[in-house]
Amino acid sequence: MKNRWLLPEGISDLLPAEARDLEHLRRTLLDGYVRHGFELVLPPLVEYLDSLLTGQGGDLDLKTFKLVDQLSGQSLGVRADITPQVSRIDAHLLQHRSVNRLCYCASVLRTRPTGLEGSREPIQIGAEIYGHAGIEADIEIIDLLLQSLEQAGLGTLRLDICHLGLASLLLAELPGIDVDSVLELLQARDLPALRELLAPWQAQPAAAALLALADCYGPASVALPRARAALQAWPAALALLDELDALLGAARLQQHASRVSLAIDLADVRGFRYHTGLTFAVYVSGHARAVGRGGRYDGAGAAFGRARPATGFSLDLRELVDLRRGTQPVPAVITAPWSDDPALLALIARLRDDGQTVLQLLPGQDAAHLAGVHSDRTIRNIDGQWRLTGKDS
Amino acid sequence: MKNRWLLPEGISDLLPAEARDLEHLRRTLLDGYVRHGFELVLPPLVEYLDSLLTGQGGDLDLKTFKLVDQLSGQSLGVRADITPQVSRIDAHLLQHRSVNRLCYCASVLRTRPTGLEGSREPIQIGAEIYGHAGIEADIEIIDLLLQSLEQAGLGTLRLDICHLGLASLLLAELPGIDVDSVLELLQARDLPALRELLAPWQAQPAAAALLALADCYGPASVALPRARAALQAWPAALALLDELDALLGAARLQQHASRVSLAIDLADVRGFRYHTGLTFAVYVSGHARAVGRGGRYDGAGAAFGRARPATGFSLDLRELVDLRRGTQPVPAVITAPWSDDPALLALIARLRDDGQTVLQLLPGQDAAHLAGVHSDRTIRNIDGQWRLTGKDS
Repeated sequence: MKNRWLLPEGISDLLPAEARDLEHLRRTLLDGYVRHGFELVLPPLVEYLDSLLTGQGGDLDLKTFKLVDQLSGQSLGVRADITPQVSRIDAHLLQHRSVNRLCYCASVLRTRPTGLEGSREPIQIGAEIYGHAGIEADIEIIDLLLQSLEQAGLGTLRLDICHLGLASLLLAELPGIDVDSVLELLQARDLPALRELLAPWQAQPAAAALLALADCYGPASVALPRARAALQAWPAALALLDELDALLGAARLQQHASRVSLAIDLADVRGFRYHTGLTFAVYVSGHARAVGRGGRYDGAGAAFGRARPATGFSLDLRELVDLRRGTQPVPAVITAPWSDDPALLALIARLRDDGQTVLQLLPGQDAAHLAGVHSDRTIRNIDGQWRLTGKDS
Repeated sequence: MKNRWLLPEGISDLLPAEARDLEHLRRTLLDGYVRHGFELVLPPLVEYLDSLLTGQGGDLDLKTFKLVDQLSGQSLGVRADITPQVSRIDAHLLQHRSVNRLCYCASVLRTRPTGLEGSREPIQIGAEIYGHAGIEADIEIIDLLLQSLEQAGLGTLRLDICHLGLASLLLAELPGIDVDSVLELLQARDLPALRELLAPWQAQPAAAALLALADCYGPASVALPRARAALQAWPAALALLDELDALLGAARLQQHASRVSLAIDLADVRGFRYHTGLTFAVYVSGHARAVGRGGRYDGAGAAFGRARPATGFSLDLRELVDLRRGTQPVPAVITAPWSDDPALLALIARLRDDGQTVLQLLPGQDAAHLAGVHSDRTIRNIDGQWRLTGKDS
């Protein structure tokens, strides 16, 4: 007999303790989004491949599991990202509004795990604002992301913001350059290799400025003067730096400053092929990969007939639960004997209406069988009356 | 340009109003299960095909979308049913307990829609009890199913129970018969065709008894006397009828009698290849297909090394939301102007902590842009103080 209980690599069950934590966090975060005026949407697990792969190019294509639709004969994909689906909803189904604030939470599936230990089935939760091009939308989105991560109860957080317009502007002055390699080396801060790659363009000021971006990280007070010095020949770049400055200085983000290091990292150019301006990532101490990411993807929805300014973030609930493992207390359970006595059933119903968990033991089952269940009280029949008593009284 | 916003047949988005209804119902039902001592588990979207297709034979196989795992080269399936996954968890991962009460809620995917208008992506919610063979577990599960449907706020409900042991016992006395055809005709109550099919066995009392099952439906007071008369030659069958009688008479089910017709239908033999004893279905007036189904599937988990008594039910949240459409009120929203003033931000934070939804309008956005949002109050600056006021005051 084969071991039929084996699961594929990067695929796992959430057992009661983890599932309870995840459900609790899911509700806390979604409720927070709703209280900010975001509306929940739930796009489908599968769509035509053409609809899923708009805008993000080859990267998402490689990540997407493909299926053949027996009904239409067409190619379907299992979503590897929910954002393009939400863009579709904004562009096509909710087009009567100037601004849409939308949030979502559901599983996505990927052909390969993200990172070494990563899941192939992240539970993606996120929020998006469509229809506003100003930094107020970015401020609102980053505020909400930081609130989410604070509520998740992770360790020390660091927010890094970047503006892809800077690299974009410099790359435009280096015709013929291998853009993807520059971005990869810049992100890795591999300066010797980047210098070598840029050598043929070394006469161009843009090449030196690109190299200098690798040094522009840390608090605004450190990173911005460096960046302004390196980019002083590009007024458009200086305007983008002013935007970053204004963003980090906004009261709504400064409210987080006691719990989150607010920083800049102009070499964090991940998502260059997808994002269109301001991007951000949040890191938790002791964890190399960002736990939350997002940014501008203006023009989203163009494939669905309506190009819109857009900004948003997403998180993986599985990862968040993993990083905070063990923090939720096991809920207490009241045990009751099996009986059809209406008086007992009425007492149990009352306790449940009050939000208590009451587990009626099946005949032959006793409290000793409840491994892993934290039962602190029990219902007993004392002198003909059903009473809630302490465990051992 | 193709219409990239088109979705495949049987696949749909849930937009804000429906998604809000679904989320509300999801929480109500899951919280109810938890208060009965059921623990939430969350099995993965995909598994090795061999693990998904245990126990249910060819029906589930046809419904299951298949994928190739690039990492292992093996065949994966996207789950078309969550129950086999929960059986695996009970058998393999939670094997230290004599009784497991488990619940779940997640999307499943099917190659074809169920019924004419059905979805290919039901959102399956359900509860299962493993480890108890007595009818107490069936009573608890049916009680919970009826509570779920009452909470969903559907129309008039009817519970039909059946015991597959009856047909099984009679079919065993008709060697060589085409079991699947008998079951199909019995379920359709196509008596002329069933009579014809049974003609070669007409000398057998079991053939006449099978035909008689088609007439055994309605309240226990009607159906049971008929069934006892038809099955009096089979003491084992009479014992099963006593079980159905005891079940419908149990105080926990009789509590529902004012809202649910409790009935028997011995011809409802659906699931014969999967279920192993008592089965049940709940119908809502005006809707032909059952909205909830379940029953015994003893022996579940055998493929994973531990055969266990099991009973449970499942529902499709999409269908429930569809049937109760329009019943949830649109939540009220407080609007506030965009401003970084700490006094305004503090007021907004206080209101949100109280559970209110406060939507801060972005610059250029005014309340007139909020199509579909029910904004009944607004925050205004009156004489230098931020105040919550009625919409038009």
